[in-house]
Amino acid sequence: MIDNPFYSHEFHGDYDLISIGELGLEEGGAIPDCQLAVATFGTLNEAKDNAILIPTWYSGTHQIWRDVYIGPDHALNPEKYFIVSVNQIGSGLSTSPHNADEANASIAMSKFPHVTIGDNVVAQERLLREHFGIDRLALVVGGSMGAQQTYEWAVRFPDKVLRAAPIAGTAQNTPGDYLIAEAMREATVSDPGWNGGEYSSNADVLGGLTRQAHIWAVVGFSTEFWKQEVWRALEFDSKEAFLAGFLEPYFTAMDPNDLLTQSWAWQRGDVARHTGGDLAAALGRITAKMFVMPIDEDQLFPVRDCKPEQQLVPGSELRVINDVLGHLGLFGVAPTYMPQIDQHLGELLATEV
Amino acid sequence: MIDNPFYSHEFHGDYDLISIGELGLEEGGAIPDCQLAVATFGTLNEAKDNAILIPTWYSGTHQIWRDVYIGPDHALNPEKYFIVSVNQIGSGLSTSPHNADEANASIAMSKFPHVTIGDNVVAQERLLREHFGIDRLALVVGGSMGAQQTYEWAVRFPDKVLRAAPIAGTAQNTPGDYLIAEAMREATVSDPGWNGGEYSSNADVLGGLTRQAHIWAVVGFSTEFWKQEVWRALEFDSKEAFLAGFLEPYFTAMDPNDLLTQSWAWQRGDVARHTGGDLAAALGRITAKMFVMPIDEDQLFPVRDCKPEQQLVPGSELRVINDVLGHLGLFGVAPTYMPQIDQHLGELLATEV
Repeated sequence: MIDNPFYSHEFHGDYDLISIGELGLEEGGAIPDCQLAVATFGTLNEAKDNAILIPTWYSGTHQIWRDVYIGPDHALNPEKYFIVSVNQIGSGLSTSPHNADEANASIAMSKFPHVTIGDNVVAQERLLREHFGIDRLALVVGGSMGAQQTYEWAVRFPDKVLRAAPIAGTAQNTPGDYLIAEAMREATVSDPGWNGGEYSSNADVLGGLTRQAHIWAVVGFSTEFWKQEVWRALEFDSKEAFLAGFLEPYFTAMDPNDLLTQSWAWQRGDVARHTGGDLAAALGRITAKMFVMPIDEDQLFPVRDCKPEQQLVPGSELRVINDVLGHLGLFGVAPTYMPQIDQHLGELLATEV
Repeated sequence: MIDNPFYSHEFHGDYDLISIGELGLEEGGAIPDCQLAVATFGTLNEAKDNAILIPTWYSGTHQIWRDVYIGPDHALNPEKYFIVSVNQIGSGLSTSPHNADEANASIAMSKFPHVTIGDNVVAQERLLREHFGIDRLALVVGGSMGAQQTYEWAVRFPDKVLRAAPIAGTAQNTPGDYLIAEAMREATVSDPGWNGGEYSSNADVLGGLTRQAHIWAVVGFSTEFWKQEVWRALEFDSKEAFLAGFLEPYFTAMDPNDLLTQSWAWQRGDVARHTGGDLAAALGRITAKMFVMPIDEDQLFPVRDCKPEQQLVPGSELRVINDVLGHLGLFGVAPTYMPQIDQHLGELLATEV
């Protein structure tokens, strides 16, 4: 167990650690005591029909949703809805390689088992049912890996998901995306400090995490972001200063094993696992009213990868978000980003289902 | 001096090593004895007005031009033209960090000076003038870094370039491109075997070069190349087999210092160095008839980066090449690629200037 101060209430505010017990895993093995870090906003009504679930993305936690997406002036309004953000397994807040306590000692660090998008969704469903008594969700919404989990929810538990909004993510990960995540993985584990996953501090892997940050710089933003020097709006004087002041500290604060647990799941996200590889059959199962929301400048999940999936979801709509930041537009930096998100999510939540 | 069998006549066929003497460099320092590896095809006519120059791209040599682009059934027809392909400094065939002989011992390996696109063009101009007596070029054509050199030729020596065709490259490198090359550099030099550039064999840097190959896999091809599994046409059974059988051996055979000499120049390619940063003024100098030929699926040099430059070149035309391979379409793998190249270059060569 490594003490990494980034994964704490100091940096992430209020959340509860809730055990859902042992979690058997799709790829074999189990998490002996699966603890999920859960942040809630608003109040569950008596009918228990005002719940919204937000699964988290790679490297992200509930924090960005709390700070950017949730509020009385947003579609994700805690005065109307009971919003539950569940940090994914391996997020560093929920059970993760670096924080394995006594109960999970057998899966600490390099011994952590492979966790899938499906495992996360199964864990979330158990949490919502057993801990909150929630059987149906007014909305599942997530970005990137959160979109993967959103699709997984809608396919795996169609009766439980009334509405769904995958933002900047796919139902079936593309090979190009797999290779991007692989290059990030290699950038990290090639650091001699990685030591087969048995480092003593994430600082041992500083070089590898920095290189991963630099690959994110390339694929996470659009080429136009760099060309138009959009980072100037964030008060940086050069692209190097932006890297050093934004992306590098973001990733180097994190735990390498945790990140790799997430990217392993990201690489293999695929709802067609439920239908013997038949993507159309899997997406055809969806009964939720779905808005598919790719970002136009996204290099990781371009519109042309998202649109064919959307067309396989009955009754769904394609709602493209315009943001020159590309995939990392998800951070909500552009002032034009959240108004688009709010408009679409507001419309979706207002749809009778 | 390292003996790397890849950089040999066995792998690259016929070429001549021609010394142009000492070459002073834009960024300071000099190459004491600059030797250029030059492959020629066809015969220079008496008027010396049928010469075509082909500078080379990152990691590439004259070999790919010889095997794919040049021939009696191509626009680059050696029965009509005297075609001179000059391998760039740092290519591994011309003077490069790994092959510094006695005369260049002072700049061997990690001591190799920074070489720019402009230095390469100055060296080529001297070679053509002093060795071949060529003062004017019927055409300069190159891909990627060869396109950078093509632009540099047209801006630096407007009177000497009658026609020019930059394929899949820009006149002014973009920051996005800079960051891509930087991620590749970091993938390489982070290998402990790199040893500050003083390895004893490129094999010492096998891991770093492999990681560089994997970043090329992501940005060098289009996402659609991977999604449509276009590599199946090359007789591979999986994307992993394609990587292991194509991209990895391609890059791991090469010399890391040589590659870095090239990428340093690539990152800083900019014809506006001649005009105090004014790109419009630099491109406005061009008198060559120019066809700007980006590849539609290119992630490194997308059409939207090439088109604004083309619009600054008087009398130029935009000729977009369609190729799902993206940037590495330059290899000429798709059967639809060379017919497009031949059509445009043929038309350009037929243009009276």
